[in-house]
Amino acid sequence: MTSLLIGLDWGTSSCRAYLMRADGTVLETRAGGEGILAVPAGGFDAVLAAKVAGWREAHGPLPMIASGMIGSRQGWREASYVECPAGLPELARGLLAFETDSGTLRLVPGVSCRSRDGTPDVVRGEETQVMGLPEAASAGPRWFVLPGTHSKWMLVAERRIVRFLTFMTGEVYAVLRQHSILGRLMEGEAEDDAAFAAGLARARRDGALLHDLFSARTLGLLDRLPKERIAAYLSGLLIGSELAGLARLAAAGEVEHPVTAATIIGSEALTGRYARALAAFGIAAAMPEGNVTARGQAAIAVAAGLAGGR
Amino acid sequence: MTSLLIGLDWGTSSCRAYLMRADGTVLETRAGGEGILAVPAGGFDAVLAAKVAGWREAHGPLPMIASGMIGSRQGWREASYVECPAGLPELARGLLAFETDSGTLRLVPGVSCRSRDGTPDVVRGEETQVMGLPEAASAGPRWFVLPGTHSKWMLVAERRIVRFLTFMTGEVYAVLRQHSILGRLMEGEAEDDAAFAAGLARARRDGALLHDLFSARTLGLLDRLPKERIAAYLSGLLIGSELAGLARLAAAGEVEHPVTAATIIGSEALTGRYARALAAFGIAAAMPEGNVTARGQAAIAVAAGLAGGR
Repeated sequence: MTSLLIGLDWGTSSCRAYLMRADGTVLETRAGGEGILAVPAGGFDAVLAAKVAGWREAHGPLPMIASGMIGSRQGWREASYVECPAGLPELARGLLAFETDSGTLRLVPGVSCRSRDGTPDVVRGEETQVMGLPEAASAGPRWFVLPGTHSKWMLVAERRIVRFLTFMTGEVYAVLRQHSILGRLMEGEAEDDAAFAAGLARARRDGALLHDLFSARTLGLLDRLPKERIAAYLSGLLIGSELAGLARLAAAGEVEHPVTAATIIGSEALTGRYARALAAFGIAAAMPEGNVTARGQAAIAVAAGLAGGR
Repeated sequence: MTSLLIGLDWGTSSCRAYLMRADGTVLETRAGGEGILAVPAGGFDAVLAAKVAGWREAHGPLPMIASGMIGSRQGWREASYVECPAGLPELARGLLAFETDSGTLRLVPGVSCRSRDGTPDVVRGEETQVMGLPEAASAGPRWFVLPGTHSKWMLVAERRIVRFLTFMTGEVYAVLRQHSILGRLMEGEAEDDAAFAAGLARARRDGALLHDLFSARTLGLLDRLPKERIAAYLSGLLIGSELAGLARLAAAGEVEHPVTAATIIGSEALTGRYARALAAFGIAAAMPEGNVTARGQAAIAVAAGLAGGR
């Protein structure tokens, strides 16, 4: 069995290819802006060929596994959602394999779950990141949070994702900054712990986001908050609203396990903000190091019998 | 004292002029799109002259009173905010009078208040609408809600506005429809009581708006909600979040009087939605008839001694 494989983290706005070992150690990375929205119809084969050029020649045919929006309806092929509970075996069974100019490509499926009243929620990409972590391989239960455009809270127990919740925090922040009246008073976005903390505290206390948002205007309008700090305050309001909402859902029994600790996965700037936010809400936070996507892809490949030697 | 006066409802996107009696009965209306954003620098005099053309010649010099964003920093002149509690006497004292090509114009001031922790809130225009209602002239206390881009909840007691809260419900709805991923699955906006009610119910139960918003995507994505009904569902989520947030603020003692009944002031489509929402939350609703802005302007003019014969 091969001890090398190729992973592709192929999302909406970027495409990163990894040559890696079966334990997820990345040997070489090729990153670019060829996200699925930037690839013309019929263009995926050419992008993939360029990304993996030379690797096949140097190492022979290697397993190729891709996760992210490349497996969505808007991507190359649609890899159907696997229902929770979903762990490595279920993701491995759900791989969608098809032939490309560069060999067989396998797409990791998304995962779906349902709230108590049957409302669906979906992830695509984050399941791979979570399953790459040693913390997910323990019996759990353990919460993971993946901040971003759509922030994902995922509960893993017995090595399977048993439930998750999406919060549109990052996207709401972006559209309010760019398109609402709140953006007009803002000038830049200074990191400002005090303004961020003030936003968190208000969101935690009030639980009335649509009202609290207006304070980002009035505090600026009446010169109570400098223009370059309004963005940090708004970020605090929104992340605080996410955490307060999660706490209310947990208190109402909507999720099975209280949120007392969480592992934060994501880019440095956002994980720092979330770490401060979790601390303000009394949630213990851990932050893993390394490329969790590559590790997750490798773990799924091993579970599927495509690679070994871990 | 004159028994006739001129009122101007002059906002961001429109300008309506009324020739009316001192009791607020409108005799003639001239409406147009000359909102403050559409008027070039130095152009307010010309707009006003055109709006009131002929009235002065026919009736002699009449008192002119204007409310709305014309009195904001972005308007003609800034009429400073009057602090709560603010009723007819305070608004009359706060009128900003200045000479125009068409005679003396008086701008109604906005009103400001503070939350328990000192955070400011502001209104400009809605104070005039509320003070025009007979319900505001009773001892109260009574809640009024003015749905819109920025929805205003105003508590009137002893004939004065004692507290109000702004919710950015309408603006958040608009930016999410036009600029977020939620708009992509929508097709038109059918009035749909069932979808609207489902949104209300979810917002009331969950109290986690940033999470609930994503259900407007997943329900559409998984064909559980027809594309033309997603907008009504989103509207229910947001108006429900407004009402649930208000209830949380009241329960926390942030506002002085429980929200068990409210008078809804606004356009027909929105007041209908709010009436259904209030019913779902167990809040008794009343809806006044007639032009509340004109009545409010007339009442302020009478309180200022500018007109009589009411």
